[in-house]
Amino acid sequence: MFETLEIGRKIKGKDFDEAVLKLRQQLLALQFELEDKPWPVIVIVSGVEAAGKGTVVHRLNEWMDPRGIYTYAFWDYSDEEEARPFYWRFWRAMPAHGKIGIFFGSWYTRPIIDRVYGKISDAELDAEMQRISEFEHMLSDDGALIVKLWLHLSEEGVRERLDKRTKQHLKSFNIPEENVKYTRRYQDFKVVSERALRQTDSSYGPWHLIEAQNANYRDLTAGEILLDSMREHLEKHNNKQHWHEPGESLVPDQPTILDTVDTEAVLEPDEYKVKLKEYQSKLAELCWQAREQGVSCVAVFEGWDAAGKGSAIRRVTQAIDPRLFRLVQFAAPTDEERAHHYLWRFWRQLERDGKHTFFDRSWYGRVLVERVEGFAHYDEWQRAYHEINRFEEQIAEHGSVVLKFWIHIDEDEQLARFKAREVTPHKMHKITEEDWRNRDKWHEYEVAVHDMVTHTSTAYAPWTLVAGNDKRYARIQILKTFCKRMEAALDKKEPD
Amino acid sequence: MFETLEIGRKIKGKDFDEAVLKLRQQLLALQFELEDKPWPVIVIVSGVEAAGKGTVVHRLNEWMDPRGIYTYAFWDYSDEEEARPFYWRFWRAMPAHGKIGIFFGSWYTRPIIDRVYGKISDAELDAEMQRISEFEHMLSDDGALIVKLWLHLSEEGVRERLDKRTKQHLKSFNIPEENVKYTRRYQDFKVVSERALRQTDSSYGPWHLIEAQNANYRDLTAGEILLDSMREHLEKHNNKQHWHEPGESLVPDQPTILDTVDTEAVLEPDEYKVKLKEYQSKLAELCWQAREQGVSCVAVFEGWDAAGKGSAIRRVTQAIDPRLFRLVQFAAPTDEERAHHYLWRFWRQLERDGKHTFFDRSWYGRVLVERVEGFAHYDEWQRAYHEINRFEEQIAEHGSVVLKFWIHIDEDEQLARFKAREVTPHKMHKITEEDWRNRDKWHEYEVAVHDMVTHTSTAYAPWTLVAGNDKRYARIQILKTFCKRMEAALDKKEPD
Repeated sequence: MFETLEIGRKIKGKDFDEAVLKLRQQLLALQFELEDKPWPVIVIVSGVEAAGKGTVVHRLNEWMDPRGIYTYAFWDYSDEEEARPFYWRFWRAMPAHGKIGIFFGSWYTRPIIDRVYGKISDAELDAEMQRISEFEHMLSDDGALIVKLWLHLSEEGVRERLDKRTKQHLKSFNIPEENVKYTRRYQDFKVVSERALRQTDSSYGPWHLIEAQNANYRDLTAGEILLDSMREHLEKHNNKQHWHEPGESLVPDQPTILDTVDTEAVLEPDEYKVKLKEYQSKLAELCWQAREQGVSCVAVFEGWDAAGKGSAIRRVTQAIDPRLFRLVQFAAPTDEERAHHYLWRFWRQLERDGKHTFFDRSWYGRVLVERVEGFAHYDEWQRAYHEINRFEEQIAEHGSVVLKFWIHIDEDEQLARFKAREVTPHKMHKITEEDWRNRDKWHEYEVAVHDMVTHTSTAYAPWTLVAGNDKRYARIQILKTFCKRMEAALDKKEPD
Repeated sequence: MFETLEIGRKIKGKDFDEAVLKLRQQLLALQFELEDKPWPVIVIVSGVEAAGKGTVVHRLNEWMDPRGIYTYAFWDYSDEEEARPFYWRFWRAMPAHGKIGIFFGSWYTRPIIDRVYGKISDAELDAEMQRISEFEHMLSDDGALIVKLWLHLSEEGVRERLDKRTKQHLKSFNIPEENVKYTRRYQDFKVVSERALRQTDSSYGPWHLIEAQNANYRDLTAGEILLDSMREHLEKHNNKQHWHEPGESLVPDQPTILDTVDTEAVLEPDEYKVKLKEYQSKLAELCWQAREQGVSCVAVFEGWDAAGKGSAIRRVTQAIDPRLFRLVQFAAPTDEERAHHYLWRFWRQLERDGKHTFFDRSWYGRVLVERVEGFAHYDEWQRAYHEINRFEEQIAEHGSVVLKFWIHIDEDEQLARFKAREVTPHKMHKITEEDWRNRDKWHEYEVAVHDMVTHTSTAYAPWTLVAGNDKRYARIQILKTFCKRMEAALDKKEPD
């Protein structure tokens, strides 16, 4: 793979200066055009040590307007990053629509280094690369332009350059010791990098390999690749996007998974009181243990309008020290949120290890209300299943417990509750025209819930369908599930 | 102060339940009304150990809709917080307009503890309390309702309660060791707390002292205080706000500080080249040293339209490794930013120790464009001077270097540059109708700049007025200032 990158391409100073003059004007024009586009540009600058990644990043900043560019190095250690799923740091740095993010160091860095130092196996590296592919695919689906640059130098080239730097008045800050160490493992890095690049070279995130021996050639090529990629992406996205439009279904209405929920289930008040106390104390205790062990819960509450979501959540939060959780609700996205992938607004809410995040409505809006109301296209909500699964997988792999509740009531029960709300003073504000409108789409929502469970109830993040006609029964079912799942997670972390 | 809080007030269970029923309905109604108001509610729950602060926080969450409430404990250590000025953590947690933030632990916690353990003197405590007063004043000026609760227990009361807790199946997670330690210093805490409370009891942030021996009395009183405060604040803010309208000035136009800038200053191309190289290398080196020592720069670039701000900034950023700085530009605030105090959007951008944040336009917009164009009222931009000084003081005290550049050109030079821009293809987009309009207000802007320098050029954050008619001269002046200020800061931290 790399042999084509050690053949001595170069550009003379005068030619370089002339070309750069043209390049800058064109880059600036495209950057200006990008500003009001609903997608970001993500530039990954990677490659072997001493290949001049820093200089390339510099050049790009210099050639364009640095005000629309955000450079991230993922360099400093941060406990806030370590205390969350690995990709949180990347989500946090994701450029907004119309902006350019330059990633100097990226999601590739850690897996490659870990493989070279034998911390992970080939199979594990492959799995990571698969994750990266899907991550990039997801960003690309959302419109992002991904430009990946790999700067290559021969082993001799690396050595020469480091020697030279060391001799030149020892700009030692620029060469941390680990870099020198990496250089000794040049061959290992080469093998692992090739494996990584091979697997992540895709139509939506192609690798651009650049011979880095001659700085002029390297920089100009990098600039040109960015220019071409942006130009093409702008052209492509200026045309109307083609969305898949599924035809009407020929199969008549079928039962859904919700028909299997026992809506007759009831819990008597006396029994309820005893169990409520029992599970709430247990949960309180478990949450303190979770804090000790650094285990988090991410819990999602979804359900029909008037299913008793709010009051059920309150039975959970009552039990927990307010310092140990955060409850997030979602109304319309803010404009910062709209300027990112739809999962961004949920990633940014994740709490640190030992603290729980409860979502009152969640990323499932994509495959529920957005699907039914047509706010998301078929392609968008369809691919969301996979995106969501990968998102939750990361949370679970980080050691957190993912809980998902759908609180189910039947149509008659909802009608009764709507009517009751309309006459109860402090509940009147809870019932709106929209609630009545949603009722008309009951079956469409049923199908959406059914499909959601089919696609996203996983071993690491199963759905709990809660029988909600009897509020007491529902609350205890939720609390019980919480305790059970947490106990299992805590046991795992600390065996007796 | 606290003797009135040890007299045995209490409420029986039945009375409590009845009162709570009414309280909840009213709290919910107010919370609902709050939702679309352009200000937040900040509730501080503090007091002696074991007084039941956690329970009160719980109750408030329970009695209202927890979805509009955000509880913060400032409990976990975070290196990202430590690596920034102290108040960054509070700014980060600040509730948006229409929301309620409950601060369980707050800006009071650290100074009080530090004083009790002798880490700071009385005078230093007083200074901290003064800072708090001003901080709360600022939030209040911006519309925030601040409700401060102090829960008091007698020394005996504290001991009894802790003993009881310890006996009861040892909910030990709830009583970290340091709490027990604090209890031993009850009297010290009492003296220091009184001093702190005394100094921060104000009309815009009054302290509500609550006897906490009886839980029913304590919780109900806390709820009622919040209810009353919210009700009154809503009433007050539903009336149109009165703004001070200054009369027209009787003093004829006077010279301003800008007239003292030597606009004739020139640097010849040859000398420029030598100096550019010299200062850029120096700056590059200093930035690496700064990283080693954890020193940050916060640099603000302001100036007339077409003063050469962008190209001057580029001469600075060219010199610095892109991993070591972030350049932030400001267009219109996002809706999340609009839902907070105007300084919030700047606080959130501050980089960690060792990394620099460059602001292309900044918080000075308040006293420049917002003042001249009438986007901010007199009261708002007038008090901004003090708010800005306090903001920069915190950055400086944290050990960062605050640099502020006003790039000055004269009216003729601006005209010449505007005209040149209109005929240069890749600069045409830089000149708009607005630029011409701003020119008509030249003198008003001059006065605004003059006042800005008068009020905000401080020992720890002086303004540098840059002679900008000659771009080369300006750039060198900026680079030179950068180097000088950084050298001074680095020397201070690490004497040879």
